[in-house]
Amino acid sequence: MKPNSLEPQVFSSEFAVYDCEIRLKFRLIEEKQALNNREQLLELLLDAFSYGADEYLEPVQAHVEAHELSEMDASPEMRRQLIRLRNSSGDVA
Amino acid sequence: MKPNSLEPQVFSSEFAVYDCEIRLKFRLIEEKQALNNREQLLELLLDAFSYGADEYLEPVQAHVEAHELSEMDASPEMRRQLIRLRNSSGDVA
Repeated sequence: MKPNSLEPQVFSSEFAVYDCEIRLKFRLIEEKQALNNREQLLELLLDAFSYGADEYLEPVQAHVEAHELSEMDASPEMRRQLIRLRNSSGDVA
Repeated sequence: MKPNSLEPQVFSSEFAVYDCEIRLKFRLIEEKQALNNREQLLELLLDAFSYGADEYLEPVQAHVEAHELSEMDASPEMRRQLIRLRNSSGDVA
């Protein structure tokens, strides 16, 4: 593909920032004391869900969304990371 | 502990059925083509979230709930599984 302008070519990055949302509902058979630790609850439930449905887990709802976010709405840290990724892509292009 | 009734002793199971809900929001830097596959989107995003926050991921919200469900409201499959677990606990008691 040939540059058709005298403007500096901007590499269109293959990376983008996404706003992601996950909502999961499921039923789980678990030992009562295992769920007492609030700090580890999220990790435990995510692990359980990741194993998939079996006789211990029944999925009820799984909703997932990912929308590309304008770079201008991303945090400065993420913008910097995008620039790093873009520059390193540029090196091999 | 001594039985204080002539009713048959019911083993109080250490297992229960839980209604679980997880809501996650986060921002993620990802390759554009990686998010095109809708079927693998949930798995990909859960994996990314499980790695934890870094220069590619910023958590926005993490909400988790787990409420014990009455056995009577559980599915027949889960009730059967609870009975199996209870019986196997009974074997070692």
